[in-house]
Parts: sequence; C-alpha cells; structure tokens
Amino acid sequence: MSGRVTLPIENGMDDEIRQIARLWGADAVRNSDGTKLPPITSELGAKVYETYFVGRGDNDWAAAHPQDRPQIFLMSQRCPALGEEPLRISVMDGYLDKQVEPDIQADLQRYWQVIDRTTGETLPSEKWSLTGKGADTQVCIAKPAAGHVYTVDFLAWQNWDPVQMYNYITNHWEDDPQRIREQPYDIRNPETWEYAQAHMDKWLKDHPHVDVVRFTTFFYQFTLVFNNREKEKMVDWFGYLGSVTKLALAEFESKYGYALTPEDFVDEGYYNSPFRLPRLPFLNWMEFLGEFVTERARIMVDKAHQSGKEAMMFLGDHWIGTEPYGDEFPSIGLDAVVGSVGSAATCRMISDIPGVKYHEGRFLPYFFPDVFFEGADPVPELEARWSQARRAIVRNPLDRMGYGGYLSLPVKFPKFVQRVSEITDEFRSLHEVSGGARPAVSTIKVAVLNAWGKKRSWMTSMVAHAKPYFQTYAYEGVLESLAGLPFTVSFINFDDVSRGALADVDVLINAGQANTAFSGGDYWAKPDISARIREFVAGGGGFIGVGQPSACFVEGSGAFFQLSDVLGVDQEVGWTLSTDRYVNVAESHFIIEGFDALEQRSRGRGLKEINVLEVESQLQPGREQALLDIGPGVGSIIPTGGQVLQFIDGSVDLSVHEYGKGRSVYFAGLPYNSVNSRLLHRAIYWAGHAEERLTENYFADRPEVEVAFYPEAHKAFVYNNSDTAQSVNVRGPKPFQVTLGARESRWETV
Amino acid sequence: MSGRVTLPIENGMDDEIRQIARLWGADAVRNSDGTKLPPITSELGAKVYETYFVGRGDNDWAAAHPQDRPQIFLMSQRCPALGEEPLRISVMDGYLDKQVEPDIQADLQRYWQVIDRTTGETLPSEKWSLTGKGADTQVCIAKPAAGHVYTVDFLAWQNWDPVQMYNYITNHWEDDPQRIREQPYDIRNPETWEYAQAHMDKWLKDHPHVDVVRFTTFFYQFTLVFNNREKEKMVDWFGYLGSVTKLALAEFESKYGYALTPEDFVDEGYYNSPFRLPRLPFLNWMEFLGEFVTERARIMVDKAHQSGKEAMMFLGDHWIGTEPYGDEFPSIGLDAVVGSVGSAATCRMISDIPGVKYHEGRFLPYFFPDVFFEGADPVPELEARWSQARRAIVRNPLDRMGYGGYLSLPVKFPKFVQRVSEITDEFRSLHEVSGGARPAVSTIKVAVLNAWGKKRSWMTSMVAHAKPYFQTYAYEGVLESLAGLPFTVSFINFDDVSRGALADVDVLINAGQANTAFSGGDYWAKPDISARIREFVAGGGGFIGVGQPSACFVEGSGAFFQLSDVLGVDQEVGWTLSTDRYVNVAESHFIIEGFDALEQRSRGRGLKEINVLEVESQLQPGREQALLDIGPGVGSIIPTGGQVLQFIDGSVDLSVHEYGKGRSVYFAGLPYNSVNSRLLHRAIYWAGHAEERLTENYFADRPEVEVAFYPEAHKAFVYNNSDTAQSVNVRGPKPFQVTLGARESRWETV
Repeated sequence: MSGRVTLPIENGMDDEIRQIARLWGADAVRNSDGTKLPPITSELGAKVYETYFVGRGDNDWAAAHPQDRPQIFLMSQRCPALGEEPLRISVMDGYLDKQVEPDIQADLQRYWQVIDRTTGETLPSEKWSLTGKGADTQVCIAKPAAGHVYTVDFLAWQNWDPVQMYNYITNHWEDDPQRIREQPYDIRNPETWEYAQAHMDKWLKDHPHVDVVRFTTFFYQFTLVFNNREKEKMVDWFGYLGSVTKLALAEFESKYGYALTPEDFVDEGYYNSPFRLPRLPFLNWMEFLGEFVTERARIMVDKAHQSGKEAMMFLGDHWIGTEPYGDEFPSIGLDAVVGSVGSAATCRMISDIPGVKYHEGRFLPYFFPDVFFEGADPVPELEARWSQARRAIVRNPLDRMGYGGYLSLPVKFPKFVQRVSEITDEFRSLHEVSGGARPAVSTIKVAVLNAWGKKRSWMTSMVAHAKPYFQTYAYEGVLESLAGLPFTVSFINFDDVSRGALADVDVLINAGQANTAFSGGDYWAKPDISARIREFVAGGGGFIGVGQPSACFVEGSGAFFQLSDVLGVDQEVGWTLSTDRYVNVAESHFIIEGFDALEQRSRGRGLKEINVLEVESQLQPGREQALLDIGPGVGSIIPTGGQVLQFIDGSVDLSVHEYGKGRSVYFAGLPYNSVNSRLLHRAIYWAGHAEERLTENYFADRPEVEVAFYPEAHKAFVYNNSDTAQSVNVRGPKPFQVTLGARESRWETV
Repeated sequence: MSGRVTLPIENGMDDEIRQIARLWGADAVRNSDGTKLPPITSELGAKVYETYFVGRGDNDWAAAHPQDRPQIFLMSQRCPALGEEPLRISVMDGYLDKQVEPDIQADLQRYWQVIDRTTGETLPSEKWSLTGKGADTQVCIAKPAAGHVYTVDFLAWQNWDPVQMYNYITNHWEDDPQRIREQPYDIRNPETWEYAQAHMDKWLKDHPHVDVVRFTTFFYQFTLVFNNREKEKMVDWFGYLGSVTKLALAEFESKYGYALTPEDFVDEGYYNSPFRLPRLPFLNWMEFLGEFVTERARIMVDKAHQSGKEAMMFLGDHWIGTEPYGDEFPSIGLDAVVGSVGSAATCRMISDIPGVKYHEGRFLPYFFPDVFFEGADPVPELEARWSQARRAIVRNPLDRMGYGGYLSLPVKFPKFVQRVSEITDEFRSLHEVSGGARPAVSTIKVAVLNAWGKKRSWMTSMVAHAKPYFQTYAYEGVLESLAGLPFTVSFINFDDVSRGALADVDVLINAGQANTAFSGGDYWAKPDISARIREFVAGGGGFIGVGQPSACFVEGSGAFFQLSDVLGVDQEVGWTLSTDRYVNVAESHFIIEGFDALEQRSRGRGLKEINVLEVESQLQPGREQALLDIGPGVGSIIPTGGQVLQFIDGSVDLSVHEYGKGRSVYFAGLPYNSVNSRLLHRAIYWAGHAEERLTENYFADRPEVEVAFYPEAHKAFVYNNSDTAQSVNVRGPKPFQVTLGARESRWETV
C-alpha cells in the first residue's frame, strides 16, 4: 500500500530517503524549518510541499524596517511600595532582552499603563516617569501609596521570532555560525505588505517544483515569551498577545470607536488566557484581527493557486487570527490544513475543520534531538501517540498523515522506522477497507457547553498543544474520550443556549474548573441560562457535568453549582459543613456495568450508609484503586439528591440523577483512560435514554477495546487501545469474539 | 494525691462509687442528664454538683404554655418549577415532625418567605398560599417561573428539646416508659420568666446538699436539627437558629429600628454558619440576644449565690447567647465554666475564658453506650484524648477535670478505671509540682486573624465540638498546635487590624478556606487591610498563611491571594496555566531542621529545578511520605517569589519568603500531628526573627516530645505525645537526656 503519507526530507541522505519513502508509502515530501528540499526530490515522484514563512526569514528587510516589528503588551513584576520613594519598577525583570524591548518612544499615556493593583486604579501619567532603555528601563512612581502593589503594562517590540527562537535554542543553533536569529516583521504597513506579496510572487516563480505551499503559517505567532534565562516564560497556544502594533491599534479605534488600553491585553497579568471569561474588548480584537488575517491570507492563497499550487496551512505557530472554527475561515480558500496530532482531541481539532479539501496530521514524535538522541527509545511515544490518535482517526479520518523535523534523526532507529511503516499501512486501511465511509454513529447528539462554543471546538481546557497539564488533564479527558466515541459532537456557548440551541441537543456536557470560560463562570448567574437547561433536562434531555459544572457564586442562590438541583450534587465551599449528608453508594447501575474494579467505589466503609460529617475513616489519603479515576479532584462534592455511584474521602466522584423526564450524570473529573472513556460512553447512552441501543454499532465488553462499524462495507474495525493483549466479546447485530495483541487492530467482516 | 476531680455518680452502685472516688481522688460529684444523685452522696465528703435546666424539664408547664415554645426559622428543600402549576412545596420534607412544627398561624407575610433562588427575589405574599398543617404543610406557588428553583423560609415551633432528644435517641429511652420527650420553653415571656425564677428559688431551697449549681445551660440551644429518620440533619455548635421567638423579633425591631426577615436567619440555607462572613443583621441579633441572655443568666446566678451555692456554666447545649469571649460575659458572675475537652484547642477554649474563678474540663470519652459497650475497648480513646488535651493543660491549666455520663458503664472496664487514676494523678502534678506557676512562654506574640477575632477565640474552623471534619481538620490543626505551644496567642479580626492591633503582634496567622470567615473572604478586597499587613511585615513582622490565606477575587488585582507578594505564593485558579513556574526546592532551612522525613519534600524529581508546566511525572497521586502532611490540600499553589521547602504534585506545600525586614511562611494545610506542630513551632520562631531563642525554654530534639519549663520551680515537665517510646536530647540552659514510654511524662529538675 502507498499514499496519504508525507515525509520530511533533507540533504545528504538520498539512499535512506528512497528506502523510507518506499517503506512508508510516502506520496509527498516536505522540508522543515531550517532544511531545504534536496535535489533527489524530483526523482521520488511525490508531491512536493515547501514551507513558506510570510513574516520572518528576511533579516535585511527586518533590519531596514524596525518600525514594522510586531509588538506585544507585557506586564512587569508586581512591586509593593514598602516605604521607599520613589518606587522604581524595572519593567524588563524576568524578560529576555534578546526577544523583547520596551517601546520607550511610544506615547506613554496611551501605550503604557501603571496600575495600583491594591485598588485596581490606573495612575495618571503625571504620577510616574520613565528612565533608561532596553533591559534597564525603569518606571519611577514618585509617591506610591504605602503597602500597595504596582505593576506596569508596557508596549514592547518583538525582536526575535518566538518559534525560530524555540527551534534555535532547542537545536543549539548558537553553535552554528550559519544560523542567525530571525527577526519578525508585521505585514500591516503597506510597504511591508507590498514587499511580502512581491516576495511571495518571486518565490512562487522560483519554485516551480513545489506543488503545495505549506504556510507556516501566516502573520501572528501565538503567545510564546521566554525568560531572562532563555527558558519558556509563558506559552498560550491560543494567545493573541503578539498580534499588536500601534498601527493596528489605531485602525481598531477608528473601526470600533474606542481605543484599546494596554490592560485590555494584559488583563491583570492573565493575558486573556482562553480560560478567562472572554471580555468584549478582547472579542472585538479577535474579530478585528481575524478579518484582517483572513483577508490578507486569502490574497496569499490566491497567489499560490494562480501559480498552480495548492495552499496548505499549518495549524500552529503563526496561526493567530485564522480561527479555523470561525465563520470566516473557509473564505481563505485553503486546500488543506496540517496540524500536529498529539492526541485524539488534537486530531479531531484538525480533521473537523470545515472549508478545506483535505486534512493532514503531523504525527508525534517530532524528529527533533530531544526525542531522537543516542540511547533513546522513540518507539513507546510513537505507539502511545498513534494509539491515542487512532481513536479519533477512526471517527473522522484525517486524509493524510506525515511527520516533521529532520529525517536524519529517526533513520538511526530501525525499529522506529519499521513500526511507522505498519502504522502508515493501518492508517491507509481505514480509508480503503471502509470504502471511504465513516463508521456509524449513535443518533445521540452531544453538545459541549462553554463560554467559547464553536470557535474553540476540540480546544477546550487546552493550554499548549496536546501537553498534559496537572490542572486540566481531568477536563481534557472529556474531549479526549469524546474524540474517539461514536457520537456527533458539537460545541456551543451560552449565547447559543439563549438562542435556543438546546433544541438540537440530546446530551449537554459542561466540564471545567470554576470561574473559567470552560465551566462558564458568571454566565451561570443568568437566570435564563439555568432555567433553559432545567427545562431542557426536565423535558427529557441529558446533562453531564464534570468537575465544577455550573459553578458560580450567586448571592441569594444558596448553591455553588447553580444546577445542583439538576445534578443532584453540589460543592461544599465551607458554608454547609454543619449539614449531615447521608450517602448510600448504589450497588449497580447501567453506567458502571461490566467493569473489573466495580467494588472500588467507596473506601473504608463498604456500601453501607455514610454520613459525610462522620469522617474519621475518611481521613486517610489515596484513591488509587477506584473505578473512576477523577484526577486531582475538585474538593468536596456533596450529594443533594443524586444517586451516588462512587464516593471516596467524603466526596462524590460519580453520581446520577433523574430530573423530570431527563437524566443527569456527574463526574468529579475525567482524565482520559479506557475505563473513564467507557464510563462516559455509557453515561451518554444513559443520559440519552438509549441504554438498549448501546450495542447498536457493536460494543466490546472490555473498555480497552473499541469498535467502529461500517454498515455499507459490512466491516467492523476492532482496536485495542491498551498495551496488553485483550480477548473480548463484541456485542452487536452479529456478535463475535476477538483476541488482539497490544495496541493491535483488526478488520472483521460482519 | 486527691482533689481537682469531679465524678458522675448515680443510684445502685454505692460500692463502686466509693472505690472509684478514692482511686481517682475525686473531691466533687455530679449527676448527669437523666440521673439523680444517690443517697450515698453525703457520705463521700465531696463537693456536690447538680445539673440545672432552666428551659426544659417541666412538661406540664410546657403543655400549658404552647405559645412559649422556642421557635426556629427553617428552609424547605429546593424545588424546581418544571412546568407543573401550581408548584407545591412540602415545607417539612426532610424534617422530623416530632421536633419541629410549622407555625402556620404566624403572620405569613412577616415570618415566612418564599424565594426564587434563580433570581434571588422574594415572592410577594399574594403569589403563594398555604395549605395543610404539621407534616402536611404545603406552600403553593400559583404561577412559578419555568425552570426556576424555589424555597420556603418558614417559622416553626420547637416541640422537643434537641439535646434531650439526642440523649433520648442515643440511650434508647423510647424503651423506657419512665422517660418522656421533654418540651422546651422560652423564658422571654414574663409569665414563663416568673415561673423559671420561682422554680429556681424552690429548687435551691429543696437542694441544700448541692454546693454547685451546674447550669446545663441557660436559655438557647445551639442549632441541632434532626431529619425525618431521627438522625442528625444539621449541627452547628455555634448556631443561633433556635434562639428565635416572635416576641424576641418584635423587641429586636423596636430596639434596632428594623425588622429581621426569615432570610436573615436562613441565609440561603447556610443559616449564618460561623464559616460565613458575618452579616450585620446576624451580628445585631447576636448582640441583642447576648444582652438578654447575659442579663437573665446573671439573675439566675445571683439566686445561686444568695443561697450559698456556686454557679457553674456548662459550655455547651443551651449556651447560645453567653459568648464566653464577649465583653459582657464576666458580668454574669459565674464561679466556673465546665466544658467538654476533646482536644488541646477545645481545652484552651475553656481554660482561657476570662471572668470566672475556675475552669473545669469534662474529659472524653463520655460515659455513654456508644463507647462503653460489650467488647469495646475505651482505653485508646482515653489515651489519645488525654495526650492531646495534656498539651493544652500544660500551657494554661484547667483547674479541675471530670467525666460525664453514667458511671455504671466504665466500671465494667477495669483497665479504663485504672488508667484514669494515673491520668488524674498526672493532672494534679501539673498544679502541684509546678507550684501553681505557668510554664515560661516565648516573648513572641502570636495573633490569629479572621472575621470573628476575639469572640471566636479557640473556636476557629470548628463545626461541632472537637469532631474532626474532612474539610476543616487541616485548619483546626493550626489551633490544635498553638494550644500546646509556648506562645501567647490572641485572636483578632479585620476591624482590629484597621484599629492598629498589629502594633501588638509579632507573628500574624491567617488560616482557612477561601470565602470563609476564617480566611476572611471579602475583607481582603479592602486596600487598607492588605496595605497595613504589608507594612507590618515589611517593617519586620511575621506572617504565616495556611491554606487559602488572604484569598479573594478582586477585580483588577491580578492575584487570588491578595498577599501573594508577601507570601511568595499564590493559588492557580485556572487563569495563568500558560505561565511557566520554575521551582527549586531548598536543601535546608531553619524551619525544617531536625526531621526524619527531610528528603520527602518533592516527589519524583529529587531536588532539581521543576517547571510546574512540566507535569508528566506529577500525574501520579500520593503524598503519604511527605514531611509536612497538608491534609486534603487546597489546589494548585504556585510560587511567586517564595523559597519552596516542600513541593509535591505540582503544588507548593510549604514555603518561606523574606519581605522587606519581615518574613512570611506558607503552609498548604496543617492537620495536627507532632511533625506539623513542630513545623509551626519552628516557623513562628523563624517568622519572629528569634531562631537563636528556640531552646530558651527547653526544646526536645524529636517532635513527638515537648517540654514545659517552670523557671521558679526549677522543673521541666517533659511529655511524649506519641504512642511509641522516645529517647530525646533536651536542649536548653541545662541540657539533659530522657527516655519516655508511650505517652509518658516526667518531671525533671533543671
């Protein structure tokens, strides 16, 4: 088999390229950041991708146009005024002066902001002054209020492209005299925009052998700031921090009728993290920037098309402003999107993007020296990533897969090379054996509700791309599970709920930490939201809450989870410790049928009645053997009417509640693993009143094994997500048995 | 040795009484609820206490004066309106009709309140109506808003005294036809007050043999409500819920110029828990009731004095309104307070009470069948409680000790009887060997800061008396440790801070869960508070934060712990997940010197630098072996400048920070144990800049052993708090070595 696979190639390894291209069935080749396509390229008969950078790569242009460097709003450290006068704040403390430089010539009144964080008040500009420059820039506050804390929001120049910087540092390019630190430039100024277009025209003409222009990416890098030790200081894969210039701010003001302040970006130092409830100025900026990016990107894409090439966008790096799930995205006219696949959720984040002809996944591990070094074994990461991604590929297939980085690294690992060839074969089989059809899905329509909705489809609770975070993995697990489950999944926000979106939903999920955009924070103070959801559930709908669903302090409400009556649980925030809570852990329930660890659902006391206030035997830590792994947990979850299915350390981990004609389920956390994913799978069927249809599209009796059913092809794809062999009974229209090795998959005719 | 010990005695066991009185050195005897002093009493030569109940015990009076039953405001269950009209709310759902009865004849507009909890709005009384009575009482809301949740605050009669009820149920008095359910009566009405006084006069005359009137207690029971299965539904040892009558409410209104609403008591269903930030109407009610209780109690106490008896108050049961740490308390004129000793903190709560001649502790276990049943071993509880209480007795001695309940129960456990005799001897030695002096204390003045201050001295983070609660034990441990440490401890509130109280403080402690009265909640939004504490620390003061100190969402502040700059840590609430946090766990520090588990301070990564964002190896649970046990923990604590001493699972457990000339220490939690108490001990010396004085009053080199130094007597009392033998070096002016058996103590001459 061959096709659907893209290979990164480079100079000096022609024989290995030929061999690997054949072994992996590659039908496309690409270069990477810092490598060039080798002369052998033309003989391979493969489609040729070449990386194209719009806003970096020409340091001469950058040096000649310093006013076109992109800018960034940053905040100084928090400095208390402890008696000394004046208070001097060194704004660059903790920042890397190679990367950013305070813009001390900007209109300070407009682009700098000194804030008393103890009162929240902005200081009038006559109360402070500026001295020094570069790393020595200081703000002096003549008469600070004693005992108050001050910060400085300041506009800075970006002098080093953050991604090139990351590559430079990670690959030790400082040892290579050929390498330079690339300065970025912003294409908003007409002169630089003209230059960028002319550069593109010339490049297209000079690269007749290139079939696919791989934009890496367009104009604005996600937030990536380094500290003064050249280590990462802040990374927000969704961050718009680096999208600022004074020209853009001026254009924004004339379009929206108000000026953005530094604090609109700095946001108390939270920098409009996607976990913050989005504020209007930031949403306006996203819209404003998105229109600009979309329009300019379309011009670049058109040029590629006009020269007979395809245009592919890399979902990453300078992707800010493209918003693949925004309404404008299809208008860019891209042929393809390629993105890094680190998990099932990130895979669906790519494969579900509307408005392009095909989707390609760049698989992990990346061919970089941090994984491929002497003595390392890159195969376990390959296996784990593939097996996680496969769950998503089965549900909504990527059209192509590939790898990135430097091929000279993995060739030294023959077992790795061999295993990739098996994976590429398995990948192609999903397109070929299935006849190109998608597997059957349940008719249950699942919607994930948060403050972002569609725009952050499959991006919920993510910090940087597919990296596990201690505080979020128990929420990311919800999407990671859903990405491989046989349901139609949509993402809606609270405005959608107000507009009646629940009419098209069977099971609604709200998952996340309190006060974040993903649980919804203050949206839950709106009576219309909770009332609509109550009516939805009472009318027969399903509601699944994970972590701190509907959590919000609302004066007078008497609950922390505003839907505590729907969920049948609430969180003890310390105000009802005087109230006894009697818990009977249910002996059985549809959701928890068929698991090995079924008895591990209440510790120390078996299944008899427990009063939460009687906690002596609950003071020992540890919940390692529990059926549902809730991750770090969210505190003390108390029953308020729900039927408890797992209760450990005085806290409800899992419960169900019948509410009117509907049903709700509560999970205290849902890190991704096979058991948790299976619990969610069953919970959706239960909440959707569809228990009897659980096996409609085949269903393996162990959670480690999943099945995709292709009715037209009469095929079932059965795959083992675990690293141990599994023998399972598969229930469904034509039951069968199968034994699969570690991570093995098999096509069965049914 | 004999003296200082009170024995509960009863009929039918004269020989055992004689024997035990001698063995324990009892010089006073008492009866208990439901027992009478036996004829043998007079021959024992002991002081005689007798229990006196003011507001219960005469069911004939109660039956004849139903209008004088005490009342209570309760809240119905939360009921959603899910389409049905009218919405019917059965207000008594979950309550026990034997205990409480809706007052349906009260002015409903005034004493009942129907609230839409989705909007927080109170329904006008014309929008709802009342049907039924007793257990069948229903509120009908004719046209509820669909999807909204409603509750009913209602006034009810209290028909059964909650403490007698508890005794009745626990002792199975329903099997005893002699026993009746006692109805309480309120003494505010002139007629019942006259009756109560006359009853007292007669009782005093009829009880010439009684030396001490043991008031159990005065007029108002703490909140204790049972559910419809006769199990405890709600218990708040500090709760004023049962202190209401319509007459009292009317008098309040004429005195304060405004009427209290049911919701002023119901408080969204939180019922003014001491964990809530106290609101003005509740504070006014406490003041109003306190004045009344104090004045009437003084009259009763005067009567006892006039008949030549002492007056002793039991700190418990009907103690509401006495507030032993309030300014009015000494005016009652009591000779003594007796209270239940469950721990060191509850012991200090008794022994520190000002304005009485002596303090007596009623030790645990209580002689009740829940502990003394066939096959039980009551000795371990005795040992544990004594050893915990001893730490406090050493610092501020109780004058007397005793036991409660029924002596017929422990006589069946000879080992228990024997061990008590040793304990009573040890107790007396603390008065006798010391020559009556208190042990030396450090000159470091410690203050605990919360929203209650002095009024809740030693009562911080307590729910019911000395019971461990999963959500509070990590905070109660702070007081439990302090209660046995050689420091002067005071309790201050935020108003005290504004009034300059920090001038008299060396080390300030703020400990508790966010949004509670004990951490302080919204008080931290006041710039004056945080500014004063910053100046206090920067000027050389010490600050110790435990759990969520200074936690409060303040818009524009950019921090959750408002003193994050002082502490050097903050809590990640989900908004700065994009920020890298580099942690180096310190190799040594004064606070952590001399512990066995010193290396157990960061898991998986040794002591090298950790970036909080790189969490892969932190995803496994478990912190069992850590030096500091933080209890359930508070979430993700991130370093913001502090020096980290313990860091596990991506969260700071213990850290220190130099701030100006001062020092701060952070503990993520401090459940009481020997190691944690010792860590706090050292932390106070460090924060107080007094490291070199650590051994000034002797100091054992193992945390399990503590020393009290009596300079005038040239004695050191050395005691082992653990249940294993300990050999220790004791440092101090004249160092010595000592080996102690489990829980053993010894007097050394120094």
